[in-house]
Amino acid sequence: MALVLYHAWKSSASRRVRLFLEEKGLAYEGHEIDLTRQEQHSPAYLAINPLGVVPTLVHDGRPLHESGTVCEYLEAMFPDPPLCPAAPYDLALMRNWVRYVDGEIGHLIRFNWRYSIAERATAMSDAELEAALQRIPSAERREAWLRAARRPYDAAELDQSRQALVRMLDRMEAMLEGGWLIGDRYSLADIAAVPFVRRIGEEIAPEALEPAARPRVADWWAAVTARPAYTRARLDPFVAAD
Amino acid sequence: MALVLYHAWKSSASRRVRLFLEEKGLAYEGHEIDLTRQEQHSPAYLAINPLGVVPTLVHDGRPLHESGTVCEYLEAMFPDPPLCPAAPYDLALMRNWVRYVDGEIGHLIRFNWRYSIAERATAMSDAELEAALQRIPSAERREAWLRAARRPYDAAELDQSRQALVRMLDRMEAMLEGGWLIGDRYSLADIAAVPFVRRIGEEIAPEALEPAARPRVADWWAAVTARPAYTRARLDPFVAAD
Repeated sequence: MALVLYHAWKSSASRRVRLFLEEKGLAYEGHEIDLTRQEQHSPAYLAINPLGVVPTLVHDGRPLHESGTVCEYLEAMFPDPPLCPAAPYDLALMRNWVRYVDGEIGHLIRFNWRYSIAERATAMSDAELEAALQRIPSAERREAWLRAARRPYDAAELDQSRQALVRMLDRMEAMLEGGWLIGDRYSLADIAAVPFVRRIGEEIAPEALEPAARPRVADWWAAVTARPAYTRARLDPFVAAD
Repeated sequence: MALVLYHAWKSSASRRVRLFLEEKGLAYEGHEIDLTRQEQHSPAYLAINPLGVVPTLVHDGRPLHESGTVCEYLEAMFPDPPLCPAAPYDLALMRNWVRYVDGEIGHLIRFNWRYSIAERATAMSDAELEAALQRIPSAERREAWLRAARRPYDAAELDQSRQALVRMLDRMEAMLEGGWLIGDRYSLADIAAVPFVRRIGEEIAPEALEPAARPRVADWWAAVTARPAYTRARLDPFVAAD
């Protein structure tokens, strides 16, 4: 198949690309990468993604990583329906928003990895952990693995991250005057935020999504989750596709 | 004037945008922001750039920050001469390269701020320093200021950063088979790297730019610095424009 996606079901960047592909109505062959088994750090995977992170899109045999880059590439190759603003200034604002969201991933990981990575990493011997760490290209991700394995983030650190993620919701509330984050239609700006808001609502700060707290964000979230592509993207593997 | 640039002469991101503007042949009104006097953290500047960093481009009254975003915006508004690859896949590779380069800025700052920011910051009282830190939006930049002021990076830390920056040159050597970093002409991929290579050659690891060490990078650097736009961009204020 022309489009192949190496992804993990619950990774935010993977969810972003699946949402984008489904909005475009593009069929693709999916390959799950098991992060808890460190499949993303295998030599075979590193050959197509030197950063050792998910997802990777392979289109006509050529690999591409970084979910924001992947989505903009898909936009250029498959323009309909448009999922990026047409006006250059709005497009620039969209890119800076995606960049900001990407920069918050460390805060999300502090929560997410408490269950997934930590379960495996805490069971490792020191020698096994050292071997696992040596296979991780990114210093930032090595640190996150080490913390998940041996020194879980404490309440103060988690609270700091929670506050940073709630600030993202505050920024969204201010941006959502017209219903969508940038311009007058659903775009990559919205899609980039969806996996974050999902996790905030599931566990990190559910009360922050209440209509009384942030009415525009609550309306936006209702509109997002009502989209057929949201269901088809299967943010969790156990949610049946329609 | 339609294009206004708020910039600092020696900031890498500012240099990137000046290089891009000069390659495009675009006239602009420049305003110097004095980083050592923390002008980038003034309320007036934060109103157009909430990150409190340079540069900011203002086009027809609308501000835009992030040098990569600014350059891609200029590319869309002023397409000739083209400075981004036309093919979507090459464009995607270019974006990931710019993203990688941006991610190395902390390593450059460890060296650069030893002279500029440190000179002012070390002279501050604890109360003055605390007040200065409170005006810095980015946690990462706050940390860099604090280090410059009170606990300069030691030899081991500088060496770690030097190694990271030399690895960038190694990646470039591998990419430069065709003379330019992405595709067959000078592009934002090259321009993004220029301020980094300049600093590496000036102070951080001059020997790494020797033709014997990295022949393609050495040839590339000679070709870059021979471009009229390189001189016109005035990477330092005391270099006369031609």
